[in-house]
Amino acid sequence: MARIVMKFGGTSMAGIERIRNVARQVKREWAKGEQVAVVVSAMSGETDRLVNFCREASPLYDPKEYDVVVAAGEQVTSGLLAIALQAIGVPARSWLGWQLPIRTSDAHASARIATIDTDALDASLAQGEVAVIPGFQGQTEDGRVTTLGRGGSDTSAVAVAAAMKADRCDIYTDVDGVYTTDPRIVPRARKIGKITYEEMLELASVGAKVLQTRSVGLAMKEKVRVQVLSSFGDPDQEPTPGTFVVGEDELRDEIGDSNVEQQLITGIAYDRGEAKITLVAVPDRPGAVSSIFNPLAEASINVDMIVQNIAHNTGSTDVTFTVPGAELARSLDVLEKAKATIGYEKLISDPEVCKISVVGVGMRSHAGVAATMFQALAARGINILAITTSEIKVSVLIHQDYTELAVRVLHTAYGLDADDAA
Amino acid sequence: MARIVMKFGGTSMAGIERIRNVARQVKREWAKGEQVAVVVSAMSGETDRLVNFCREASPLYDPKEYDVVVAAGEQVTSGLLAIALQAIGVPARSWLGWQLPIRTSDAHASARIATIDTDALDASLAQGEVAVIPGFQGQTEDGRVTTLGRGGSDTSAVAVAAAMKADRCDIYTDVDGVYTTDPRIVPRARKIGKITYEEMLELASVGAKVLQTRSVGLAMKEKVRVQVLSSFGDPDQEPTPGTFVVGEDELRDEIGDSNVEQQLITGIAYDRGEAKITLVAVPDRPGAVSSIFNPLAEASINVDMIVQNIAHNTGSTDVTFTVPGAELARSLDVLEKAKATIGYEKLISDPEVCKISVVGVGMRSHAGVAATMFQALAARGINILAITTSEIKVSVLIHQDYTELAVRVLHTAYGLDADDAA
Repeated sequence: MARIVMKFGGTSMAGIERIRNVARQVKREWAKGEQVAVVVSAMSGETDRLVNFCREASPLYDPKEYDVVVAAGEQVTSGLLAIALQAIGVPARSWLGWQLPIRTSDAHASARIATIDTDALDASLAQGEVAVIPGFQGQTEDGRVTTLGRGGSDTSAVAVAAAMKADRCDIYTDVDGVYTTDPRIVPRARKIGKITYEEMLELASVGAKVLQTRSVGLAMKEKVRVQVLSSFGDPDQEPTPGTFVVGEDELRDEIGDSNVEQQLITGIAYDRGEAKITLVAVPDRPGAVSSIFNPLAEASINVDMIVQNIAHNTGSTDVTFTVPGAELARSLDVLEKAKATIGYEKLISDPEVCKISVVGVGMRSHAGVAATMFQALAARGINILAITTSEIKVSVLIHQDYTELAVRVLHTAYGLDADDAA
Repeated sequence: MARIVMKFGGTSMAGIERIRNVARQVKREWAKGEQVAVVVSAMSGETDRLVNFCREASPLYDPKEYDVVVAAGEQVTSGLLAIALQAIGVPARSWLGWQLPIRTSDAHASARIATIDTDALDASLAQGEVAVIPGFQGQTEDGRVTTLGRGGSDTSAVAVAAAMKADRCDIYTDVDGVYTTDPRIVPRARKIGKITYEEMLELASVGAKVLQTRSVGLAMKEKVRVQVLSSFGDPDQEPTPGTFVVGEDELRDEIGDSNVEQQLITGIAYDRGEAKITLVAVPDRPGAVSSIFNPLAEASINVDMIVQNIAHNTGSTDVTFTVPGAELARSLDVLEKAKATIGYEKLISDPEVCKISVVGVGMRSHAGVAATMFQALAARGINILAITTSEIKVSVLIHQDYTELAVRVLHTAYGLDADDAA
């Protein structure tokens, strides 16, 4: 007997027909004798509807009351799934955030899960009942409703899995796993069988939005084995395995150390959501860089890639960096105001950039990864505007027009293309 | 400073524009320095939507989970009203059923309120905060969500008013008070200024559906002064007084004993929802009547008016009674099956009947009320099929075709017509 958490998103819960389908998938696992907790999202569109109500009621809505309103969406689907399960002979009950309880911080609308009490849950599971738990919600120490922020249901699922020491947390989605890159760009992209938390984090944060980043971080911290798989198969049949997100140990145990190192690159991601800013001729003196980034940090603007060119002989230097595209206007405003303090000559910005990242735990022990990347891009005449690296990732900034070409070239260069795909 | 409860139904909460309007009405009372608790329904149509989800998920849905689903409707409007109040400078917070808590019986989907803890509520009101409380919901002793049954929000409002010892419970509705009869039938119907709980119960249960019957019974038991008034006036202006539902003491104190007796009849109600059944030639022996009504009671069919004619010389009698129209088919089925036991000759039924009731506390001390009624109806050739009386009510059953005529004739006969109306 295993303990598993199954998580279904809004698309899977959109309407009674689909909820019935989810119930059959849950029954399939329950019928094997597994102890099953199900974490559900609101019906797709419902959270938007509720959020819009709050905004309409007041653009400066109280996040405490916002949480009361939007938590209702998952409450509804939890009750409905429990009913649908009972209808096909599976004993089930819903456990709302305040009933378990799931205790969170009091950062309303973006709370963090602190503890989950599993006494009642354990007793219910031991009786063979399926527990249906609304994702996204919890309560504060003093008993007020909280929500975790958009997409929080993945995080709820992982947190529940950690608390009940589940053997596996299956996240059912509208894709059947994590791919080596976006299959819309590279038809020969392959589904990844196993990926480490670290790789998943890098892929997720740069654009492969299959799992919420926070949930992956939590899974890594709590060592929860997560599987991403498709919710669209025949609900009564064993599903096609998806992608397992696991610790590096498990990966090494399974495919062997040498293979991990050989399989240098796990995937290639791209992100068109950033914009590039260059400050021309910044005085080359101590404190110059902080005079740029302090005001941006104060305005809560995340700066990503930073490149500082070698100083000109003139005693000044150019500083290039990226910010989220949506923050570009605000960033420029902040920098204009700080012009005197920073002392730059000119401000250039470009929203038409794309960040391409190659990710893989294997690259730690292999120096040639970046070289392969630069070579492959240069061979196609793709100019690199900025570079950043981490232990398991190399990212380059290029012009947006080259996005597809760059992804395709790199996918081939790292030997990721599937043999049999079209 | 007074303590008041204001209750708003689904029509008043249907959409943000209307919720803002409600917020202004609440602010008007709060600005006087009153301590205000507001009880709200779900947006109109929302409860139906949620109930339909449950039915679709399973016709035999678990009422425990049904309660989880449908309670979400009032949760949403509570949060939204709190936001709308804050937006116009009124400190406010929502208190969900489980947060106060409002403890109920565990009869899910039709629970009864047991106790309401007001410690937290009192503290909040004392700080000048408006408390927004979802109607219709509560929780069981062991922490599961309950609902009170359809229309339960009136009952919630009265229960909250009783628990917080409110000076008044204002029920805002789409009518501006209780009328002497249906104004669609009698344009000269008058709005009643004060009516006793007992009269209101009789009027409500026979068709004047302004307040939920259960809420009136609770108000009577807890001595809560209820006002029914319109929610459609200018929200910033003092509203036109509606109808106060009060104890007989208050009525007598205000208008004087002699006036109470003089004002024989308070209102005239009608109910087309019943059906008449006659059992012809039932053996006139002890136990005959119970052999008819026992099987009906076992089938949970409410029998209302009962008339037993004088025994024929043949040693048999005819028994006539009414049942809810919706239960007619089931009643006939029960009676057919019990034919041998009862020993009647023939079964006649007629769904085309109407019950007309004249109601008034003053009639207790006046014998002529029924005589006036029979006379007035006879003068128009309206045949009376059955009669029942209570201390404050005389009801007759007539053919449905005569409904409007009978109501109009009686309204005039008892001097209820307004002088100035069209």
